[in-house]
Amino acid sequence: MNVLSDGLRRMPAATTLVTTAPALAASGDGKATNFLLDNGMEVVVIPDHRAPIVTHMVWYKVGSADEPPGKSGIAHFFEHLMFKAATINHAAGELGRAVSAIGGSINAFTSNDYTAYFERVAPSALEQMMRFEADRMVNLVLKEDDIKTERDVILEERRSRIDNDPQAVLHEEVAATLWQNQPYRIPVIGWMQEMEKLNLTDAQAFYDKYYTPNNAVLVVAGDVEPETVKAQAEKTYGKVARGPALPPRIRPLEPEQNTRRTVTLRDPRVSVPDFSTHWVVPSYRTAEPGEAEALDLLAEILGGGNRSRLYQQLVVKGIAAGAGADFGGTMLDATNFTIYGSPRGNAKLADLEAAAHAEIARIVKDGVTDDELEKAKNRYVRSQIFARDNPAYMANVYGSTLVTGGKVPDVEERPDRIRKVTADQVKAVAARYLVPEHSTTGYLLPKTET
Amino acid sequence: MNVLSDGLRRMPAATTLVTTAPALAASGDGKATNFLLDNGMEVVVIPDHRAPIVTHMVWYKVGSADEPPGKSGIAHFFEHLMFKAATINHAAGELGRAVSAIGGSINAFTSNDYTAYFERVAPSALEQMMRFEADRMVNLVLKEDDIKTERDVILEERRSRIDNDPQAVLHEEVAATLWQNQPYRIPVIGWMQEMEKLNLTDAQAFYDKYYTPNNAVLVVAGDVEPETVKAQAEKTYGKVARGPALPPRIRPLEPEQNTRRTVTLRDPRVSVPDFSTHWVVPSYRTAEPGEAEALDLLAEILGGGNRSRLYQQLVVKGIAAGAGADFGGTMLDATNFTIYGSPRGNAKLADLEAAAHAEIARIVKDGVTDDELEKAKNRYVRSQIFARDNPAYMANVYGSTLVTGGKVPDVEERPDRIRKVTADQVKAVAARYLVPEHSTTGYLLPKTET
Repeated sequence: MNVLSDGLRRMPAATTLVTTAPALAASGDGKATNFLLDNGMEVVVIPDHRAPIVTHMVWYKVGSADEPPGKSGIAHFFEHLMFKAATINHAAGELGRAVSAIGGSINAFTSNDYTAYFERVAPSALEQMMRFEADRMVNLVLKEDDIKTERDVILEERRSRIDNDPQAVLHEEVAATLWQNQPYRIPVIGWMQEMEKLNLTDAQAFYDKYYTPNNAVLVVAGDVEPETVKAQAEKTYGKVARGPALPPRIRPLEPEQNTRRTVTLRDPRVSVPDFSTHWVVPSYRTAEPGEAEALDLLAEILGGGNRSRLYQQLVVKGIAAGAGADFGGTMLDATNFTIYGSPRGNAKLADLEAAAHAEIARIVKDGVTDDELEKAKNRYVRSQIFARDNPAYMANVYGSTLVTGGKVPDVEERPDRIRKVTADQVKAVAARYLVPEHSTTGYLLPKTET
Repeated sequence: MNVLSDGLRRMPAATTLVTTAPALAASGDGKATNFLLDNGMEVVVIPDHRAPIVTHMVWYKVGSADEPPGKSGIAHFFEHLMFKAATINHAAGELGRAVSAIGGSINAFTSNDYTAYFERVAPSALEQMMRFEADRMVNLVLKEDDIKTERDVILEERRSRIDNDPQAVLHEEVAATLWQNQPYRIPVIGWMQEMEKLNLTDAQAFYDKYYTPNNAVLVVAGDVEPETVKAQAEKTYGKVARGPALPPRIRPLEPEQNTRRTVTLRDPRVSVPDFSTHWVVPSYRTAEPGEAEALDLLAEILGGGNRSRLYQQLVVKGIAAGAGADFGGTMLDATNFTIYGSPRGNAKLADLEAAAHAEIARIVKDGVTDDELEKAKNRYVRSQIFARDNPAYMANVYGSTLVTGGKVPDVEERPDRIRKVTADQVKAVAARYLVPEHSTTGYLLPKTET
């Protein structure tokens, strides 16, 4: 039950698993099969037979950026209610107890563009999980008492995870400064004064509108066969009636940015200052062909690990404790490109920031070398290959892609598309998008720092 | 057909009139009479018999802050359509020609919280004006051709008045940075990419929802008697059927601000730089008793004319070409308090800004003197008395007050309430609201300025 993204950073994997499984063996393993149920629910199956386990995920195409004005936090609140409330067929908590009883795990997360629920269980329990998820897709019984209790939970979650954390508070206001019109400005957990007023009517309307098979994607990854999964999905999810058609997800877009913006938080709890600079850039869904891939490689070259420019120029040279770059490409609308850093020892934050921006200026002026581009491609593609060894991670990749306007081939063809990016394309996206005068920078400072 | 406010400044008078009329003479002159028509339309009449003229205004309780997500600019666009389209009874432009024929004037304006239409004519033409306005309140015929033509007009208006003016571009992004959730963030004229898509369906839905007698206020000021106006209003507006009840205007509110924010625009067209610092503060409608009055006096003391602190410290001392303060109290939701200044000669903008903020710090620490408070009250109340000599201005004051949640007594009792403010209250609002670390500052700089 996590708030995952906040409009500023890449989606982390919901579960971070370290596997030592052997490379994919059985023929067809790792290859996704994709089909639609009659009620409009999309299904992706990614077989992987190396371990007797299956990841079962239901993704809904609704997140904080779809919330009605003044109802921020309802998507995440509703995710909580899915665990708190009973259904017509099951008592509250029964699903969680069933998962525990068989030694599985269960959780959920909410992001700007989607909400997902997942279980990791033995394959023999898959159909039971499907019955539970199909049941709560349509049979949830929302009650005033649950609303009140769970609203207190999310309010406390906000206090402890946001309001008590200067970094998180800054993050929220940077996002709302970067995004002046597009709803990624809205914090996934919600603004406190609006969360306090979320009620049964809001929750019921949200459920009725968005929790339908035709607004959901089922992803099953692990020790399963597509045919079996299909039969099981038809027996369970297939029985849920199609809901009212939803209008296309056309959300307010960001106007052109004409200014340089800064957001500064000073707090006595801060011991090490940091900065992060953000630019509005296209996502895989909104980009012109090749641009998102070039941005991914630009992030890799600038800030992807120990060989990256920011690491070499800032960390290795001893002025930064940490530095990096990030591109959150898997979003429905325009997304953000970020560089960040934190000074080491007596280094000045301003010097660090200037050095980081100088690296970008150097790429804008001189481009990247063929060698660093090749290495960045290798790192990127290798990480994708490693990822394929992790069925739970791949379930996340397919799920997040499909609920942000992508298709199965977008995942499968990603390595080839990355391979095709030229050094000129990387230079071009840096020049086009990473304009210092049209950026937004957040500063986290100790109370006395000047 | 003006865009009036933009979430950052006080509402200027729609018409700036210099009158040399004698002081109010006839008994009852200047005293407002207030009543409701059976269909829910509110009416205010302010008799003033010194000149044979009447200001007739219809105010609708809808502005840019009420627009649906992604439809920014529709309120202002609709104001244009009210002049562009024909009605069932009148050809397009007929109202304007009728006003011209009798030597009157006609115009309209749109703001964050309201849209208003007005004519200034001889009293004998008042009923005719009422018939015209009552007619277009309900009988407008929207056509695709008019939509296309007028949309081009507002797009051109945006290009010429915003996009070609660095100050206006900065202003927009400062407003959208100051307001991270509250819809005063939306520019009244609209974001270009959304204005381009406004269509007939949007316009019709907007008209049907908001243009009803129960969502309007009629203000008539000038050479008229309340009884006559009432009879005329009943014969004209009274015939318009009540529209569907609108929900209360509960809009998303601003979360607590925890950061200091800056927005910088550099442009080769800028010759003289300037800064403006903004804080979110309560409006007359949202403030605790006495706080809005104290903020009005604080603005007066800080930046109201030649005796103000900013003028004395910055302009008289030769470092500023101009400087001032402003409080936009007549808003439905929380509003903003602003200080601003522009350097003179070789003075540095940063020095000017520091000196301005030092004056605020001085008030927060030491308060204001009884003498300057008394003088500020006198200036404020005197300006209100002068204003009463101007029926067109008073029509604006009553209209804007009534469509932002105020009542007739709020206007009438304002001078007394201002008189009651203490020096401690002024110090308290400065300390409570004008916190440097929770401010938003815009900088307009020449391209080469550092």
